[in-house]
Amino acid sequence: MNQETLNLIKNSIQSIQDYPKPGILFRDVTSLMEQPEAYRATIAILAEKYKDQGITKVIGTEARGFLFGAPLALELGVGFVPVRKPGKLPREVIAESYELEYGKDTLEIHKDAIKPGDRVLLVDDLLATGGTIEATTNLVRRLGGIVDDAAFVINLPDIGGEARLQGLGLNVYAICDFPGH
Amino acid sequence: MNQETLNLIKNSIQSIQDYPKPGILFRDVTSLMEQPEAYRATIAILAEKYKDQGITKVIGTEARGFLFGAPLALELGVGFVPVRKPGKLPREVIAESYELEYGKDTLEIHKDAIKPGDRVLLVDDLLATGGTIEATTNLVRRLGGIVDDAAFVINLPDIGGEARLQGLGLNVYAICDFPGH
Repeated sequence: MNQETLNLIKNSIQSIQDYPKPGILFRDVTSLMEQPEAYRATIAILAEKYKDQGITKVIGTEARGFLFGAPLALELGVGFVPVRKPGKLPREVIAESYELEYGKDTLEIHKDAIKPGDRVLLVDDLLATGGTIEATTNLVRRLGGIVDDAAFVINLPDIGGEARLQGLGLNVYAICDFPGH
Repeated sequence: MNQETLNLIKNSIQSIQDYPKPGILFRDVTSLMEQPEAYRATIAILAEKYKDQGITKVIGTEARGFLFGAPLALELGVGFVPVRKPGKLPREVIAESYELEYGKDTLEIHKDAIKPGDRVLLVDDLLATGGTIEATTNLVRRLGGIVDDAAFVINLPDIGGEARLQGLGLNVYAICDFPGH
């Protein structure tokens, strides 16, 4: 990726002060998707990185992960599998809970969506604590899938998600870093 | 679209009895997205239909609408705008409530995502009552956008959403019809 493309993508991401709560500087990918050149370049960079790697499925987590995972799956020519909040998937699921700052949340995946030996790429818009991607990794591995890679548009390197996911044996890639919280 | 492609798409959609509640036969697009040829053909059909129509933005409604609207926006080379449940969008929003079978629900859009004169295509996975697309049409029109078209993968013709949306002046297109409820 050249510097010009990186700047196009980075500059398309708006920063919103005090969302979702005071003290948080929120990095907003909806402004990226409104700019077709930036959105297309984002998917092209990820497709270039993960083509010819033997990936057989792409997973995106609800809901912003859908916006990058689904176009990437189409570009790679492999199936897309959504990981969703409880009760949203119609077929038989398995579930995994994970800790939030206050309380817990749960994610589900269709039991028949991953076959043993599937090589799965996890995609989300932003890596902060890594909690949702850890839970998703657990879901895929319980179904016999192989997860070696997680890809993000944005990494917040000061929050520590990268080290957490590396501890699970994942290679972590992000198009751009935004230091700070 | 030839009959073979239509069959590929239609056969990739699983039908789930009694989801989300007894008596409902749910048409499930997640099985379509797991099959890359079917998913790619779906986006290609929609892109072929709406290219050269002067569309400037594609809207997908949370969350399954993201899975078809976002790849279609990329294919058409226009911006993608998400319409979401309350509290999920970080910038200034306008909101619109709509009736459900029991109770109400609300959808929001970023106020700055649609400019007066934008020609907006609405995309969702499935047309049933048309309530979410009616609310979305109202949101776009309040911001000065022009909405003439709504596109779906699946139409349930016996539920009446098509007539409701035609009453708002929309052209309604669906790749496949599934009669019954």
